[in-house]
Amino acid sequence: MQGAVLYGPRDVRFEEREVPKISKPTDAIIRLSATCVCGSDLWPYRGIQPITQPTAMGHEYCGIVEEVGKGVRNIRTGQFVVGSFAASDNTCVICKHGYQSSCVQREWMSGAQASLLRVPLADGTLVATKELPPKELIPSLLATSDVLGTGWFAADAAKVKPGNTVVIVGDGAVGLLAVLSAKQMGAERIIAMSRHAHRQKLAREFGATDIVTERGDEGVARIKELTKGIGADSVLECVGTQESMMQAIQSTRPGGYVSYVGVPHGVALDGEQLFFSHVHLHGGPATVRRYLPELIELVLNEKINPGKVFDLALPLDQVSEGYRAMDERRAIKTLLRP
Amino acid sequence: MQGAVLYGPRDVRFEEREVPKISKPTDAIIRLSATCVCGSDLWPYRGIQPITQPTAMGHEYCGIVEEVGKGVRNIRTGQFVVGSFAASDNTCVICKHGYQSSCVQREWMSGAQASLLRVPLADGTLVATKELPPKELIPSLLATSDVLGTGWFAADAAKVKPGNTVVIVGDGAVGLLAVLSAKQMGAERIIAMSRHAHRQKLAREFGATDIVTERGDEGVARIKELTKGIGADSVLECVGTQESMMQAIQSTRPGGYVSYVGVPHGVALDGEQLFFSHVHLHGGPATVRRYLPELIELVLNEKINPGKVFDLALPLDQVSEGYRAMDERRAIKTLLRP
Repeated sequence: MQGAVLYGPRDVRFEEREVPKISKPTDAIIRLSATCVCGSDLWPYRGIQPITQPTAMGHEYCGIVEEVGKGVRNIRTGQFVVGSFAASDNTCVICKHGYQSSCVQREWMSGAQASLLRVPLADGTLVATKELPPKELIPSLLATSDVLGTGWFAADAAKVKPGNTVVIVGDGAVGLLAVLSAKQMGAERIIAMSRHAHRQKLAREFGATDIVTERGDEGVARIKELTKGIGADSVLECVGTQESMMQAIQSTRPGGYVSYVGVPHGVALDGEQLFFSHVHLHGGPATVRRYLPELIELVLNEKINPGKVFDLALPLDQVSEGYRAMDERRAIKTLLRP
Repeated sequence: MQGAVLYGPRDVRFEEREVPKISKPTDAIIRLSATCVCGSDLWPYRGIQPITQPTAMGHEYCGIVEEVGKGVRNIRTGQFVVGSFAASDNTCVICKHGYQSSCVQREWMSGAQASLLRVPLADGTLVATKELPPKELIPSLLATSDVLGTGWFAADAAKVKPGNTVVIVGDGAVGLLAVLSAKQMGAERIIAMSRHAHRQKLAREFGATDIVTERGDEGVARIKELTKGIGADSVLECVGTQESMMQAIQSTRPGGYVSYVGVPHGVALDGEQLFFSHVHLHGGPATVRRYLPELIELVLNEKINPGKVFDLALPLDQVSEGYRAMDERRAIKTLLRP
């Protein structure tokens, strides 16, 4: 079997890898219908988050169940399934609180940029559709696995409600789907911060009512201008840098909500500044599994079309170009067909 | 008129001060029934938060209205009133969201350790009782002005609910009243972190079910032990140091709630650590004004007795001993009688 392996900065190779096998009775093996490159894959790809050994890449996936372990009860061979980037038992007390991505048995998924994938804790991790979905919905179903689930978590964690004014910091695929999520949750005013025409257009399609191109202090000043000097009810931070985090906190009204959904890199929050900002802060690894059944339904009923964030689709053997296009911001997000 | 003035580290003097006067039509002047020393007064008293000039101290107060400005509509001479440490109009959009301590017209109160006090924005800031309260309820009514209101905010901001497991970090007066607040909100298990017998006793009286004496990593380990390895639903940070903040975050279950209510001194939060902790974080200047009507009712109906935190009562002219006793932790909180 062939798949993507990262060797070092900007060196991702498509090469022979061991065929995944059932290693625990709770595992399943799936044959991927589609996979993709995640914004978070770019941190190690760019060398910002160094790797210590060649690493099988990919954690977004959907596909057909090929085999299940003896302990698997609810997932069956032949089903179409979607799972989260965090395998979870979905039964522990933390899962019951809806925080499956911090499950006591959590395992981070990897190796999904391949034709076959081992999924641990299959009963807890995977959600199956009743029937095999039509081919044209595969990109949107794949999106529920991480990028949409993460945008949805951003909106949920920032308590987006009908009538709210919402700001989205970051115009990557997660930021754009955070716009879609805020729209679904009934936000009245959705301000997307973006300076790229192509991304602005998609943000508007997904429901953005305003676009702000300024960043940093100027971006904050612009948001204050648009909100009568008060700040937004909810601000969704979808980047993960010090600048974007501070921009988010300062753009929020006292008593408002800030969510952050990308692993922060080099971010330190000053306690006193946070205290006087009076915001609510919540984030972490998106609780995708909590939302999967609802998001899959929305896609199958064609209420949403999150697959639009894939503006580049390549055969899996061109994975290296897929990373390059995202790194150079030529593509918002690359879909890979095994 | 005489009152307390801080000149420098551990140098608080009782001396002649200018008599406060109505300076804006929205002001009121009150004659204090009682005032007290706040834990936050100890930061400048200890020189940790240096002052640049002699400073009139005190921001907790209740008393009888002596005079009102021409623009005051709802507060009348002769009424008994309580107010928050943050004067607020109670009408702006931020106040309407319940964040009066970030009101667009906010003024920090000071100079309450005296016989008379000017209160700005009297209609918004002050809450009057229907009748003059009995003398024995004055300490508890005074407590609503800050220390109880702050403990209540800690419990509210950490989403304490019936059946919850709650941890309180800090056994100062705010921490102790956070215990009382958690009890009122229906928490099932209330774990107070304290190593002082006298404070432990009061914590138990207020509703604590468990006492943990360990601190730092050992304290976290003990909380994990008491919560089946998961952490508490809500953790109320009532100290304001790096150690107490980290202790609070690490003692909370993923998806749980951390509140912090004391101005953080030298606290920096690592973004990545916060991200993977998966907690909700909320705090800031307590929104005391939001709670005042409810808290005053609870006191007048003798449902709660927060005045118990005053374990030292002195005539105002002994204010200097009042600070000293708190600084040396001989007293939990000092009440001052003008």
